[in-house]
Amino acid sequence: MRSAMATAEVGDDVFGEDPSINELQERSAALLGKEAGLLTSSGTMSNLIATLAWSNHGDEIIMGTEAHMFWNESAGQAALGGVQTRLVPNDSQGRINPDDVAAAIRPSGNLHFPRTSMICLENTHNRCSGGVLTPEDTKSVGDVAHAAGVPVHLDGARIFNASVALEVPPAELARDVDDLSFCLSKSLSCPVGSVLVGSQDFIDNAKRWRKMLGGGMRQAGVLAAAGLVALDTMIDRLAEDHQHAKRLAAGLANIDGLTVDPESIQTNIVFFEVDEDLGTAADLIAALNRNGVLVSYPGKQSIRMVTHRHISPEDIEEALSRTSAAVRELRSAA
Amino acid sequence: MRSAMATAEVGDDVFGEDPSINELQERSAALLGKEAGLLTSSGTMSNLIATLAWSNHGDEIIMGTEAHMFWNESAGQAALGGVQTRLVPNDSQGRINPDDVAAAIRPSGNLHFPRTSMICLENTHNRCSGGVLTPEDTKSVGDVAHAAGVPVHLDGARIFNASVALEVPPAELARDVDDLSFCLSKSLSCPVGSVLVGSQDFIDNAKRWRKMLGGGMRQAGVLAAAGLVALDTMIDRLAEDHQHAKRLAAGLANIDGLTVDPESIQTNIVFFEVDEDLGTAADLIAALNRNGVLVSYPGKQSIRMVTHRHISPEDIEEALSRTSAAVRELRSAA
Amino acid sequence: MRSAMATAEVGDDVFGEDPSINELQERSAALLGKEAGLLTSSGTMSNLIATLAWSNHGDEIIMGTEAHMFWNESAGQAALGGVQTRLVPNDSQGRINPDDVAAAIRPSGNLHFPRTSMICLENTHNRCSGGVLTPEDTKSVGDVAHAAGVPVHLDGARIFNASVALEVPPAELARDVDDLSFCLSKSLSCPVGSVLVGSQDFIDNAKRWRKMLGGGMRQAGVLAAAGLVALDTMIDRLAEDHQHAKRLAAGLANIDGLTVDPESIQTNIVFFEVDEDLGTAADLIAALNRNGVLVSYPGKQSIRMVTHRHISPEDIEEALSRTSAAVRELRSAA
Amino acid sequence: MRSAMATAEVGDDVFGEDPSINELQERSAALLGKEAGLLTSSGTMSNLIATLAWSNHGDEIIMGTEAHMFWNESAGQAALGGVQTRLVPNDSQGRINPDDVAAAIRPSGNLHFPRTSMICLENTHNRCSGGVLTPEDTKSVGDVAHAAGVPVHLDGARIFNASVALEVPPAELARDVDDLSFCLSKSLSCPVGSVLVGSQDFIDNAKRWRKMLGGGMRQAGVLAAAGLVALDTMIDRLAEDHQHAKRLAAGLANIDGLTVDPESIQTNIVFFEVDEDLGTAADLIAALNRNGVLVSYPGKQSIRMVTHRHISPEDIEEALSRTSAAVRELRSAA
Repeated sequence: MRSAMATAEVGDDVFGEDPSINELQERSAALLGKEAGLLTSSGTMSNLIATLAWSNHGDEIIMGTEAHMFWNESAGQAALGGVQTRLVPNDSQGRINPDDVAAAIRPSGNLHFPRTSMICLENTHNRCSGGVLTPEDTKSVGDVAHAAGVPVHLDGARIFNASVALEVPPAELARDVDDLSFCLSKSLSCPVGSVLVGSQDFIDNAKRWRKMLGGGMRQAGVLAAAGLVALDTMIDRLAEDHQHAKRLAAGLANIDGLTVDPESIQTNIVFFEVDEDLGTAADLIAALNRNGVLVSYPGKQSIRMVTHRHISPEDIEEALSRTSAAVRELRSAA
Repeated sequence: MRSAMATAEVGDDVFGEDPSINELQERSAALLGKEAGLLTSSGTMSNLIATLAWSNHGDEIIMGTEAHMFWNESAGQAALGGVQTRLVPNDSQGRINPDDVAAAIRPSGNLHFPRTSMICLENTHNRCSGGVLTPEDTKSVGDVAHAAGVPVHLDGARIFNASVALEVPPAELARDVDDLSFCLSKSLSCPVGSVLVGSQDFIDNAKRWRKMLGGGMRQAGVLAAAGLVALDTMIDRLAEDHQHAKRLAAGLANIDGLTVDPESIQTNIVFFEVDEDLGTAADLIAALNRNGVLVSYPGKQSIRMVTHRHISPEDIEEALSRTSAAVRELRSAA
Repeated sequence: MRSAMATAEVGDDVFGEDPSINELQERSAALLGKEAGLLTSSGTMSNLIATLAWSNHGDEIIMGTEAHMFWNESAGQAALGGVQTRLVPNDSQGRINPDDVAAAIRPSGNLHFPRTSMICLENTHNRCSGGVLTPEDTKSVGDVAHAAGVPVHLDGARIFNASVALEVPPAELARDVDDLSFCLSKSLSCPVGSVLVGSQDFIDNAKRWRKMLGGGMRQAGVLAAAGLVALDTMIDRLAEDHQHAKRLAAGLANIDGLTVDPESIQTNIVFFEVDEDLGTAADLIAALNRNGVLVSYPGKQSIRMVTHRHISPEDIEEALSRTSAAVRELRSAA
Repeated sequence: MRSAMATAEVGDDVFGEDPSINELQERSAALLGKEAGLLTSSGTMSNLIATLAWSNHGDEIIMGTEAHMFWNESAGQAALGGVQTRLVPNDSQGRINPDDVAAAIRPSGNLHFPRTSMICLENTHNRCSGGVLTPEDTKSVGDVAHAAGVPVHLDGARIFNASVALEVPPAELARDVDDLSFCLSKSLSCPVGSVLVGSQDFIDNAKRWRKMLGGGMRQAGVLAAAGLVALDTMIDRLAEDHQHAKRLAAGLANIDGLTVDPESIQTNIVFFEVDEDLGTAADLIAALNRNGVLVSYPGKQSIRMVTHRHISPEDIEEALSRTSAAVRELRSAA
């Protein structure tokens, strides 16, 4: 990947003249069954651009209670897009109920109400332990949204994990949404970037917002070259990450004081719960750090671990053994 | 009230020179135990100014799932203030749990998170059937907020209803919040306006935002004159509205197909549920209209009725009799 | 006017049920040749609503270098509307050159550029000494704007002054603009309010923004009643204000140390310059205050005086005599 | 540079763990005499972050009439920052007059006025033919701004061109501003990126806004590695670009129908004027394209040419010869 970056052919993308970027955008769109694509700086930027492109300030967007866009994107939707976010419940797998969505779409003609401008899905779902949405899950929400004339954005940062886990082509997972973004970094192991795909009109509009945000990058072909390598070589191998995550969950479930259902792990993200008699998640994270295991993103009693290309089966076993040690430390200190 | 308006002494309030407005603002502040007050065009404007005064764009504000500010103010908090709204559960009486608030306040130092800039309470609570917050309810949330350095805004559109229902002075209900607004229209029967009260610094800041919103009204002393009459004559009589609402609820509870617990009615707002075998709330509202009873604000199966100064005991009985007729119509059509 | 207010028939305007407001809105629209009207809290709010209704955030609006909307409305266009303001030169009478407007309208298809969403005119022009735009002035800008598909908003706070000064019906002054606002306070002597008029679609859209800003006033019929009286009785009498202003300017021109061209005074606003050897405008304003003459709005060397219904010919002579005294004070102190 | 990118050591910059980025940020800050630095996606993003970090919505920022931030950044300052932009005249070299700045800073205490939150300078100045600001030019504006408590941002996209042209260390050009940005692309020949530098507090704040905009790039060390090479090898060589630009201007001045003063060319940007009898700039650009010379960014009669690392002395002569041919084409067609 680095060597592809070193030899990438580039041009000025602000004028659409970078061949590597153009190829990445076209291949991404084709892979996901959309007309056009756009390289952006990050998943957060792609999600923000989708909000800006579909909404006017004063609109309302609907997403799940555990959505990354609500929790971890610095309130950019409201701050920069001027939209209000309305949450409907996520189930443990990251799905939202189409009936809840239907009830949450604002009726027109009432001056007290904002206009609903967008429904957001997330696949796989980060805060819901990497849960996947099937094509049917997506269609059921898409149907409700489209019946009301509301577009659906998919935060597909890890859409290829869902594709591999479900053994379904990515385009099928994208069929019932109007646009989606996926990350080149994260699962695909590129250094930087995200790609947003949708109709040509949508992407034309998105380009204006990307420029305004300062995400128009001159000769980003070096980044795109990495992305092209990733599309060729980094997708099928995600199955390994998923096996590692399942093994990790099974091992964690065997450690007294930690709780996780290994059957619930669908992709490469493992959330587990720390018993209160051990202390808080923050306590265990500190102990893990002392044992050389770096994790992040704690809730009060929950911890997230993620597998990726640089994690081998041996690393999993090592992590489990160190986690056991960290738990023992906490227990002996209690 | 109209005659007070006709003879009100006025001046240019943009320069702080309208004596009627000044008197209204001072008396309002005194009544609620705050340093200063500000006349605005509406309760929506007062709430919006509070958001603008306490927040920078990119901040997050916390309120109950049934808050008027979230449901019925056109998403102005996000559209004009650039803030994200985070909801915590309202109980049936409109309270929010201090523990939920504590958990929802964002920790500092994480770039992914917005800053929590304001907690909002509502007393009485419109969508929670006019439920009241006691001084203790308010203090429990105020303590949590203030411990985290976050101010509390009270949407007190109907704060005097709470005061009369609880037999507690309004200043006691306002003691643990940093600012609050109350409406001159609604319960107090004035034609137009709302008053926002808080510290002198807060009000100085609020004036700038009011000006920007176009709420700086030149010789609004005519409106203030009505407000002064209202403060003298319209508060104590709210007890009647509450009795009427209780009688209304008791009568509705006796109509087959309608559900309401008369014991739950604390002030002048009555929500009741329509059995699904009668049809939807919209069906009953249409039948009520045909019988000369105007109601509004339906949820799927719920209807709101409000008592006020121009509703007499006889009107209540008449409304009940016509509601019975409307229900019979629906049942015979079924 | 106060008695009309005291007996006004009112209703809830949020539901469009206040007969006095409805009549005011309809008569205003008819008088200005537009389909529909909307009562707002102030001229600032009307101008802001026009920006919000015509623009999306990220758009650019064009107005004169001396526009009230740029100078004196707290940057609300940018703060709340998210639009950038581009200025083209105002001449001494408040006109802008159609060629300048044509050159300032952004070409489409360049991602670096915002979209031009609105051109703003001001008639009469406050900071340009009450200068008037003729129907031809307005048409020349309107033609350029409309050829580019851009709507024209007229800040007509004092449009009736222009109508009286030019002896042209107000509808003729409004013919080539897409919407305009006029103030009930200011020249028309009402306590509060402004009316925005335009097409039915524009007003429907404007209502939503007024609601969001908190400018939806419940029973504002008392204010509308004053407006209806003003439309009947306050327009024709503006000719007197204009005569008084001309007399005032002639008198000021005779005071050594003050400069104003009486021929340039077209309506009720008089700007004059203070010679630097007398001191600054602020110095003279202080001396005027000591002599019981209240003026406002100073530039470095310029002072504004405005005539209105409560200013008689005797008041003018008195003001001139006191201004002479104030100038003498400054000179003797120098 | 590409090989440095291929072997760059990287980490997750969102957690501050990318050593290449950290080194680039530290060296950039040191080079410009500031405490800290931040890598962003583009110069537009750096400028936008400065606006967001210094301003609250509703503030006003001051810059020159020809500022890139006003003309070519999609109105992001207003759209995303909610700030109004006030322009003061640029002279032909891109300077602004400190007296104009002083007069444009809004006095406090008037509710009609926004707060002035930032003054912006640009060095070198793109639309002013690459004109440079000396340390004295910058200090004179800085002094006025700081006396009023207003910070100064420098859009230093091409600050190293100014440093080389003036033979003054970059830190001296940055001494009197509170923050500045420079571009890694453009003159420094990197593929992507910009660096913002300022105090540690400013950069801490800037990080939050960068995250919100989606400019937080995970393993952007590959981009930073290119930046480090550029700081070592790309600055001193800018003198060549300047010589080429002077030669280009001299040659253009000799072509009948084109006007430019070669003495005015200070750095690597050449603007020249097209005589109207040849047609418009757009006409000449079309003819240039037919002759294989690509230029961009036309005003009505003006064209911009820029020299850079890949332009040799021979390229300049070739460009001049082709431009002559293009002008002959236009003249013979006329």
